Amino acid sequence: MPAPSPERLPAVWLRDNCPCADCRDPRNGQKLFQIVDLPRDLAVGEVRQAADGAGTEVIWSPDGHRSVYAHEWLAEHEPGVSGGTGDGRTEADKTLWRAADLAGALPEATWAAYESEPATRARVLDAVLRYGFALLRDVPRREGQVLDVARTFGFVRETNYGKLFEVRVEPDPNNLAFTGARITPHTDNPYRDPVPTLQLLHCLTNAAAGGDSGLVDGFQAAALLRDEDQAAFATLTRTPVPFRFDDAGTALAADRPLIDVDPLGRVREVRFNNRSIGTLRLPAADLDAFYLAYRTFAEILLRPGLQLDFRLTPGDCLIFDNVRLLHARTAFSESGARHLQGTYADMDGLASTLAVLRREQAAAEDGPLDELAALFAGEGAGEYLGEEVTMAQHMLQAGALAEAAGAPDHLVAAAVLHDIGHFHGPLHGTDLMDGKDNRHSHTGADRLAPWFGPEVTEPVRLHVAAKRYLCAVEPAYLDALSEASVFTLEVQGGPMSPEEVAEFEANPYAEDGVALRRWDDRAKDAAAATPDFAHFRPLLAALLRTRRG
Amino acid sequence: MPAPSPERLPAVWLRDNCPCADCRDPRNGQKLFQIVDLPRDLAVGEVRQAADGAGTEVIWSPDGHRSVYAHEWLAEHEPGVSGGTGDGRTEADKTLWRAADLAGALPEATWAAYESEPATRARVLDAVLRYGFALLRDVPRREGQVLDVARTFGFVRETNYGKLFEVRVEPDPNNLAFTGARITPHTDNPYRDPVPTLQLLHCLTNAAAGGDSGLVDGFQAAALLRDEDQAAFATLTRTPVPFRFDDAGTALAADRPLIDVDPLGRVREVRFNNRSIGTLRLPAADLDAFYLAYRTFAEILLRPGLQLDFRLTPGDCLIFDNVRLLHARTAFSESGARHLQGTYADMDGLASTLAVLRREQAAAEDGPLDELAALFAGEGAGEYLGEEVTMAQHMLQAGALAEAAGAPDHLVAAAVLHDIGHFHGPLHGTDLMDGKDNRHSHTGADRLAPWFGPEVTEPVRLHVAAKRYLCAVEPAYLDALSEASVFTLEVQGGPMSPEEVAEFEANPYAEDGVALRRWDDRAKDAAAATPDFAHFRPLLAALLRTRRG
Repeated sequence: MPAPSPERLPAVWLRDNCPCADCRDPRNGQKLFQIVDLPRDLAVGEVRQAADGAGTEVIWSPDGHRSVYAHEWLAEHEPGVSGGTGDGRTEADKTLWRAADLAGALPEATWAAYESEPATRARVLDAVLRYGFALLRDVPRREGQVLDVARTFGFVRETNYGKLFEVRVEPDPNNLAFTGARITPHTDNPYRDPVPTLQLLHCLTNAAAGGDSGLVDGFQAAALLRDEDQAAFATLTRTPVPFRFDDAGTALAADRPLIDVDPLGRVREVRFNNRSIGTLRLPAADLDAFYLAYRTFAEILLRPGLQLDFRLTPGDCLIFDNVRLLHARTAFSESGARHLQGTYADMDGLASTLAVLRREQAAAEDGPLDELAALFAGEGAGEYLGEEVTMAQHMLQAGALAEAAGAPDHLVAAAVLHDIGHFHGPLHGTDLMDGKDNRHSHTGADRLAPWFGPEVTEPVRLHVAAKRYLCAVEPAYLDALSEASVFTLEVQGGPMSPEEVAEFEANPYAEDGVALRRWDDRAKDAAAATPDFAHFRPLLAALLRTRRG
Repeated sequence: MPAPSPERLPAVWLRDNCPCADCRDPRNGQKLFQIVDLPRDLAVGEVRQAADGAGTEVIWSPDGHRSVYAHEWLAEHEPGVSGGTGDGRTEADKTLWRAADLAGALPEATWAAYESEPATRARVLDAVLRYGFALLRDVPRREGQVLDVARTFGFVRETNYGKLFEVRVEPDPNNLAFTGARITPHTDNPYRDPVPTLQLLHCLTNAAAGGDSGLVDGFQAAALLRDEDQAAFATLTRTPVPFRFDDAGTALAADRPLIDVDPLGRVREVRFNNRSIGTLRLPAADLDAFYLAYRTFAEILLRPGLQLDFRLTPGDCLIFDNVRLLHARTAFSESGARHLQGTYADMDGLASTLAVLRREQAAAEDGPLDELAALFAGEGAGEYLGEEVTMAQHMLQAGALAEAAGAPDHLVAAAVLHDIGHFHGPLHGTDLMDGKDNRHSHTGADRLAPWFGPEVTEPVRLHVAAKRYLCAVEPAYLDALSEASVFTLEVQGGPMSPEEVAEFEANPYAEDGVALRRWDDRAKDAAAATPDFAHFRPLLAALLRTRRG
């Protein structure tokens, strides 16, 4: 993408984004000037290439200020070109769902995996942002544990119910939640402003008959309402509803619409709680319109296809978006033991934790990929065992052949990386052409193992054995080998014996090793167009161990 | 106000407000039905007076449900009749201000008064809701004290800055707040969603040159913008602005407009922070419009007349609305000691605490006023020392005479209550007509003292002495006394001696006592129209000790 020319960009916007140390504190990235500090008649004066060639330099008129914008930044932020996903809080950034979309495939993880694997933690937090919830299993059934769960991604929001609330039958309940009654789908605390955006429920005991859980995607329901009855949708976005809660020590009030949209009209919050709607004060005609729309929305929310039903079992901890998902529970026998502990928290902390995890993950990926890129660019430019291509060209051609053959990503990766064992640098090898078997296939596979799984490393490990295998089972194969390959075949042990053939064929990665070998053999064409390492980088990144779990 | 007839009211709205025990949990007031549980063709069937006469009974068609609505409730909640102030969060419920409105009259209280006097606490919290801030003085200069201040009215909102943050120069600051730089008016944490709605800053040390504080009413500025440039106002309410904050462990993002309006178009939140606005992604024309509007708003915010300047001195704790007020500070010498501790909290908890305080205050007022009303209705209906009026009539007539004379409220109250010492019940007295001075003036004053100040109790205490005084200094006065009064004069000690006269005149309440005495003497007219106790109740309520402080 070419960088747009600064003269074509809105001047104040461009200047407001000046990255120089006078405009932004280098310690924390905060802006150091105010908008009124900029000249009223600001304009781009002079434009030239920055000294380092990587950016565009702007000299501003009339104040002579100098800004340097990286080409990459200019290209990425060109006004009007869609980009960025906003803050991730509106329906635009969510995956809306109905029960059937997730039944039997709840976004979940064990507590052990969540605690120990950053990738699992990222997957769980992403599910809360994307689907509105995630379920942690086998969370220690310890009182107060729910607070520790919340603290893994954010901050507990204390309310009149305490830092932690008990969901069980109470003798003199101040809320229906603390009885055995059925609770229809609702969001919590709509009478609070700001409403807690996340809720956690940790199941300690659930031996009661009944007391099953349900979740409804309120954004999905709002979208259906908008499709089916636009006027009702508009009414619910425009009518502040008085939510109220009173007990001995509390008198909470918030007047907010059932469906809250952002300035662009996108759904960003849903509040729905039949229990706590107070008395609306509107002209009679508006009351009629509101109640009609409210009923229509309630009917959609109660459609059987929308509610995802499941049962929290002891050790489960549900984390959910309290401004999007409605939660419900069936009635239960007040005699059976049922005990959940809950807490509230906020989405911004969760989103921040996820963003930092991803940043760390990207940094962790950049390490190995930068190292591989350096090897391809450095030693890789060297001679390849007497062939007419460099080592890097050879490996990249093997990858290109695998790609052209429609091979799965892990096999393309294995092809690109198969001779990594030849490289020195961090991947010390020895010189095969000196007549010693450096077992470069094993060295390479072992060096790749910290970064990639066996679906990548094992075909690499087998690609030398595959040559010996093919020589044993395909007489024509031996005849077609290059001169250098024939020489190394002897060093490597010659064609396999029948016992070795049987053993090789028993290896689950044998077929992949053979496929890799055939690309390996053809990847020595000095005339072939060869993709560069950057071409394969995203594919390699996606296979890194940090992405899994 | 007459109650509207149920047939004229929107049926679903009325039914949704049914107060019966099947519709609302009597334990907690929560609604027990869902809107979809109501018949689609709901209509008022039959209407009749409720058995107790205080309400209207509705029999609903077609389901035969029975609701009883108090006349008072129907009159108060009539649709379309303005009533209720909503949740108090929009500009409609605020007192907008400029610096001159509050300079020298900051809403403030000492920590000791705030802690010990519920009325002072209510006044301070009300100021935060109404003006957007209040200042507590002489708060103990103890580290962590700011958290205790927050906990007097709500819950601390923990953030990436911790439960508590230190505002002082830090060696490697992640925020400009932790340097000595000037900070222009801004709201905090706009990159958080939900943004903390309250901030507290507690000054422990401020010996640096500079470092003064300023506050700007962002709602006032928004209102000015709307008046002066409606298009700019509309642009700022419609443009989500990407606020961003990143440091080693945090990556916060919120896309929210600078001016947030409720569905009725009323300003409800302002976010303004030049330091943390990221890169806007809009078409070029929209960027130009936004930057023009942003600059115009910034210029208004920086008008000198708007910013209220003051200096936090050690022991001061500022509580302010972080979604309305912008705060600023002048630069200060990094060598001088300046140390503030801050925390965030939320408005909903503060508003709830204030509402509960007011409820308790009303209950505290209802106690004495209900007791007085019962005395007037009970014993007050009895004979008044041989006069032709009852005791209650006599006292109420005295009050009416004071009122007609334009007397100040405290003196009207004293007139209404002056013979309270005659009552038995909780105010045990003895029978003056038995020939003993029951010192009913002193008894009455002493009994009133827990509820009312000396401006009410002391004229009551002096009203018997005033008779003896007037008999001594006004010969015509004695002649005009009623037969019963002449009899009791002797029991009470006869006309004053010259020494007693001098002593009486030295009493600061003597004049009020004499005025009261003259109404007392005239308030024995069996033919006069007499207001009831309820007429004086609001006046009495306003004078209760619970309202002062």
